[in-house]
Amino acid sequence: MEILRTNAEMSRWRDECYRKKQTVGFVPTMGYLHRGHLALVEEALRRADQVVVSIFVNPTQFSPGEDLDQYPRDFERDLDLCRELGVHAIFAPEVEEMYPAGFQTRVLVDRVTQNLCGLHRPGHFDGVALVVTKLFCAIHPHLAVMGEKDFQQLVVVKRLSKDLNLGVEIIPHPTVRESDGLAMSSRNTYLSKEERQSALSLYRSLLAVREMVKEGERRVEVLIDRAKAIIEAEPHCKIQYVHVVDEDTMADIAEVTPMAVMAMAVFVGKARLIDNMRLWPG
Amino acid sequence: MEILRTNAEMSRWRDECYRKKQTVGFVPTMGYLHRGHLALVEEALRRADQVVVSIFVNPTQFSPGEDLDQYPRDFERDLDLCRELGVHAIFAPEVEEMYPAGFQTRVLVDRVTQNLCGLHRPGHFDGVALVVTKLFCAIHPHLAVMGEKDFQQLVVVKRLSKDLNLGVEIIPHPTVRESDGLAMSSRNTYLSKEERQSALSLYRSLLAVREMVKEGERRVEVLIDRAKAIIEAEPHCKIQYVHVVDEDTMADIAEVTPMAVMAMAVFVGKARLIDNMRLWPG
Repeated sequence: MEILRTNAEMSRWRDECYRKKQTVGFVPTMGYLHRGHLALVEEALRRADQVVVSIFVNPTQFSPGEDLDQYPRDFERDLDLCRELGVHAIFAPEVEEMYPAGFQTRVLVDRVTQNLCGLHRPGHFDGVALVVTKLFCAIHPHLAVMGEKDFQQLVVVKRLSKDLNLGVEIIPHPTVRESDGLAMSSRNTYLSKEERQSALSLYRSLLAVREMVKEGERRVEVLIDRAKAIIEAEPHCKIQYVHVVDEDTMADIAEVTPMAVMAMAVFVGKARLIDNMRLWPG
Repeated sequence: MEILRTNAEMSRWRDECYRKKQTVGFVPTMGYLHRGHLALVEEALRRADQVVVSIFVNPTQFSPGEDLDQYPRDFERDLDLCRELGVHAIFAPEVEEMYPAGFQTRVLVDRVTQNLCGLHRPGHFDGVALVVTKLFCAIHPHLAVMGEKDFQQLVVVKRLSKDLNLGVEIIPHPTVRESDGLAMSSRNTYLSKEERQSALSLYRSLLAVREMVKEGERRVEVLIDRAKAIIEAEPHCKIQYVHVVDEDTMADIAEVTPMAVMAMAVFVGKARLIDNMRLWPG
């Protein structure tokens, strides 16, 4: 497994794959890998000849006051996990390599970034759009596998890849959950044992709401009230948002449609957790 | 010579070159080709195995009220000229192919777009940055040849290509001039015979100012006054700006340095003409 530190090394590795007529699969991560990431890697390994995983805690996607400095890191463990799975290359640039002195370019995706996390994390998706553009351009992979847990991010990256002709097929992967339903996240490490218990209310509320839709409820307002009530009944939980949006546009909707997704962000202790679920039955 | 109309066709053509281990040179244009463009094409043909010329009048780089609708076009003539030179492919997408319904991504280069044309053509360089990013990503050329007449554009594209890891070597090409010194431009076609005569004052003012620098003048204010006086002495000329800037940062400077460039935009009749020159002697 090669460990690449610069964009130039990364591009040379990619050129070598192209020369050998090998397809390149890519999994972008911020490291501190969990089973959710590993499922993405396995999917990439099934679909491409060569797989590169990026490990880069991207400062531009953190808002001021967020957990950039505390974000968990364990590079050696990440390498071991990737090596075990058979990953071919790791791209792990320093911040100065990605954003050297003189850097002054931004990539903005407009409409699909306005709602949900875009409302509450100013600049977050600008940072995501920028780093993903840079990674896609440096790596030029045939495909990238990304998790549905970061649902809005997935929509933003799909939009971006299409709009800028980046030519990368985006493969969505279902959210991987702990056995009790908690969505896997590097930030789960922030949770105390008690908070961990409270955090289960996110998934429970999504299941409850989907059940209501199955039984015929279509009024989004009613569904949101129900989800909020379930989460607010738990200690340690502070809801940031619960919305039901159209999967393509990220716009709020009033009635459940086949494109309806409930998405939520909840502070559980100091951990900001997100989760989401498609609501249409079947 | 192949004529490619979609990003998908363009990328397939490029992939074919890569498979044959051929290097790809690119010349972006808005068509209505003149000898200036042809010099860029010849330079690309010298440097790359395969050359693609794009012909696309990009609406996003025109400000409201500018000459988008009147911009001169002659596609068949452009094709003949490219064919004669031995161009391998033309990329000529429709506006709807480049900016389909749902399009919502922007690329902004910050500091180097603030001065000069960026001051007077709001949104112009946002449009340039966007279309160049899209073209570079669709074509993924090894190199692109661009003219120094569009001096600030060249700096913006260099910055962008580096910042986003587009991996395209930008080759600057000296401004090509008519025998009397007028910089070649598709917009010269707007000039009446009399205006054409007045338009020579741009080049004349640049030569005069460079001569002053050669003789020891370093005060930018004095140089700008002299250039303006030469241009304003002509009928039909209305100066938009005359600046002396640092070639890297595009910031105004007060004293001439080895990085000093005088850049100007002047309306001659309805034609907005730009020109520029390095001022350091030797």
